[in-house]
Amino acid sequence: MSELKVSSDPRETSELSQQLESLYQVIFSRRDVRSQFLPAAVPDEVLSRLLYAAHHAPSVGYMQPWNFLVIKSDDVKQRMHAAFTEANDEAKAMFEGDRRELYSSLKLAGILESPVNICITCDRNRTGQTVLGRTHQSDMDLYSTVCAVQNFWLAARAENIGVGWVSIVKQEQLRETLGIPEEIIPIAYLCVGYVSEFNDQPDLEKAGWAERLPLNDLVYYNQWGQQGEGESLAEQIDNDRSFPFSAERN
Amino acid sequence: MSELKVSSDPRETSELSQQLESLYQVIFSRRDVRSQFLPAAVPDEVLSRLLYAAHHAPSVGYMQPWNFLVIKSDDVKQRMHAAFTEANDEAKAMFEGDRRELYSSLKLAGILESPVNICITCDRNRTGQTVLGRTHQSDMDLYSTVCAVQNFWLAARAENIGVGWVSIVKQEQLRETLGIPEEIIPIAYLCVGYVSEFNDQPDLEKAGWAERLPLNDLVYYNQWGQQGEGESLAEQIDNDRSFPFSAERN
Repeated sequence: MSELKVSSDPRETSELSQQLESLYQVIFSRRDVRSQFLPAAVPDEVLSRLLYAAHHAPSVGYMQPWNFLVIKSDDVKQRMHAAFTEANDEAKAMFEGDRRELYSSLKLAGILESPVNICITCDRNRTGQTVLGRTHQSDMDLYSTVCAVQNFWLAARAENIGVGWVSIVKQEQLRETLGIPEEIIPIAYLCVGYVSEFNDQPDLEKAGWAERLPLNDLVYYNQWGQQGEGESLAEQIDNDRSFPFSAERN
Repeated sequence: MSELKVSSDPRETSELSQQLESLYQVIFSRRDVRSQFLPAAVPDEVLSRLLYAAHHAPSVGYMQPWNFLVIKSDDVKQRMHAAFTEANDEAKAMFEGDRRELYSSLKLAGILESPVNICITCDRNRTGQTVLGRTHQSDMDLYSTVCAVQNFWLAARAENIGVGWVSIVKQEQLRETLGIPEEIIPIAYLCVGYVSEFNDQPDLEKAGWAERLPLNDLVYYNQWGQQGEGESLAEQIDNDRSFPFSAERN
């Protein structure tokens, strides 16, 4: 593979290289897909690349705590779909009034429509109990596994493959359906497949469920709560408001 | 920004497009940097892009639970470095014999050498207690925040900026140093800056601490523990052994 051509000279970064631009394009146009899956199979050579991308995530103490369950069995998908439906009915009842109505109108999983589902898990004991980097932050192995999920997701977007993360399912039903033992933590259940289109906005933004927050409201300086008045970075962030949006809309 | 040019026609993906190749190059050459930081400042326009990349991570119920503390203060960095050193001394004592010796020889943080540190946190109550998608998996908001970390990390690599995740620090010392309230969860403390080089392998692989696991050992089919004998995907994964390594080595 060729070297990354982006220069480390700050003066050259104001005009983004094609490579840098396409990475941002992938990041800004990635979507949580529920509705647009096509039945076309995902070729092995593509799935293999996506799994290698996930496997090259950072991991605490280099423990690589992940496993990947590749699910194409109709029977397993049917049982997962049933588990999702049960949990989703419970979830609906937790919202009230207009929110419940809006919630009920949303499609929140594409388990049956996507040709392949992938469950990514975390084996907390992979390299013994004492893990470099996990000694003072015990969740680091879970977080490493999430980094693998995000690598998979971004690589999939670049391959024009949609991914939807299904979290509305009881963990014990997911374990039972997939035969996952007690000591293994399921992190993500992903629906994976080619799509008719990627929405220009996140589904929940489009549906009026929530809006994107202004980035400057979320950035503090040196101490929690200290906002960016007079900070040149805050001005830059304000100037860049259109940077991600142009990627989203076109 | 230009559209992604990758075709969704599976027949066209065997020869990777330049855009797809550069995304994989970013993923495979990303490193957890501790030793190679240069003092050069990271320009605001680059930091702004990295923060927008993080802000465009997926989030459960679109809650965007993250905040970004940008730390350039020498005083704050000195206190974080002291907290790291204290925790790291404790950590050393948890390993025995040769492992302790090897652990002690490793440089595990670049807090003072990197020009900017960034702490990414999770506000679990940002959008109230009942969150779409978090109803049956309560950690989803933490995981969303980790996705933001990984977006930041990959965008940084594409900008030729190194990132190192410091997890060897007592959470209460980190909170105290940064003024983070009880209800906010610190997820990642990142050292950020240009680097003299990106190592061709992860530091811990290079140091002989651990080796990369063969991907096929980690992939199961339809049920936990069911390995890929006779599966065409397993063959493909075996054939692709050199795919990520060529990116790592050159």
